[in-house]
Amino acid sequence: MADSKGKVYLIGAGPGAADLITVRGARILAQADAVLHDALVTADMLALCPQAELIPVGKRSGQRSTAQALINQLLVDAAGRHRLVVRLKGGDPMLFGRADEELRALEDAGIAYEIIPGITAALAAAASARRPLTRRGVARSVALFTSATAPGEPDIVTLPHCDTLVQYMGGREAMVTARKLLERGQSPDTPVVVVENCSLADEHVFQLRLAELETGLAACSGPVLVLIGEALAAR
Amino acid sequence: MADSKGKVYLIGAGPGAADLITVRGARILAQADAVLHDALVTADMLALCPQAELIPVGKRSGQRSTAQALINQLLVDAAGRHRLVVRLKGGDPMLFGRADEELRALEDAGIAYEIIPGITAALAAAASARRPLTRRGVARSVALFTSATAPGEPDIVTLPHCDTLVQYMGGREAMVTARKLLERGQSPDTPVVVVENCSLADEHVFQLRLAELETGLAACSGPVLVLIGEALAAR
Repeated sequence: MADSKGKVYLIGAGPGAADLITVRGARILAQADAVLHDALVTADMLALCPQAELIPVGKRSGQRSTAQALINQLLVDAAGRHRLVVRLKGGDPMLFGRADEELRALEDAGIAYEIIPGITAALAAAASARRPLTRRGVARSVALFTSATAPGEPDIVTLPHCDTLVQYMGGREAMVTARKLLERGQSPDTPVVVVENCSLADEHVFQLRLAELETGLAACSGPVLVLIGEALAAR
Repeated sequence: MADSKGKVYLIGAGPGAADLITVRGARILAQADAVLHDALVTADMLALCPQAELIPVGKRSGQRSTAQALINQLLVDAAGRHRLVVRLKGGDPMLFGRADEELRALEDAGIAYEIIPGITAALAAAASARRPLTRRGVARSVALFTSATAPGEPDIVTLPHCDTLVQYMGGREAMVTARKLLERGQSPDTPVVVVENCSLADEHVFQLRLAELETGLAACSGPVLVLIGEALAAR
């Protein structure tokens, strides 16, 4: 069994659009024997690996997410059966991707792996909105953060302190962020950008003020990213 | 003249390796009539656009960086002469890329543009080091920051507050960061990863403790990225 172990590539799929994966990621995908993918990975992206056995491990309608321990096991099992296995994750694998748990499982099983980074949503959203995350003399620090990452985990206690804030998996949690920022003295006129379905055909970009965030979010139904800070001001 | 104006693509080249650009970025590069590129963009990357007129606008040995106002002008001029112009920037254009100034110049000149994001060094460094930037129950916020961004600007006054800190253009400035973090009560055992020449053939990854950062940086001569936080602990 040890001799037949394949190699695993953790690949960042990027924000959604099939051509926002890296050249390296696309090349490896096209050679993969099996691909374990999140629900966020689009059909267009999976068209890059028509030869591969597809193993969906993300949340699907009416079902809970595949538990992380099961994903780890599926990954190790796939590497036992195949030469080249891809673990394809939305965004970047090392940011909000629970990579640590999957890498640990691979290491414990003695399976070789490599990580190929992906475009994280904050950067794709800034490109879509045409608003930079940093600006000379205005903003030189950017926080990428989430609120609770798992059911049962306590809500975030203190917000990050950075010139620009980018909240992943924003939605309802971003309303709490807005309230806390206003309490901490941030101006209600602080520019906010909300990007829904980033980089996809049904992408929407909303330009708001901090005080309007709650109303703005009510219009969104897809996954949203919330960007807050003076760097995002209209030119 | 107005009718002959071309379109400009601001493209993120990513951390350095030629195949860590996006598929979309590589496709546009291969069609470009002219490419204005930073000094950080490698010869391997420029081999993706052998047809294009190359206009270097980065810092070169013995010379100061091309002033931003001149870059803006060169960009506008190139769009007057060519159908498809690429502004190729190391990393991602919207993060520490002074995109705001270039976009403003294009808008003032009535030139159409599009932005294609790139892999930022923090993510490529995490992939190389095999250490995630976030970890469930340990780290859910990441600060990407720089110290002074231009000669004459005051040094950063307060460090960002996030679980994981990533200092761009680290070098000497990261030693100041380390001192400030120790003063603010951060453990001297906090894991630190230093990545030099990220994603290139001469890449080096150093795993240190916060207390060792100063000694560790002395060994680096190329561009370094400094990552600090418990998420980076060895597995």
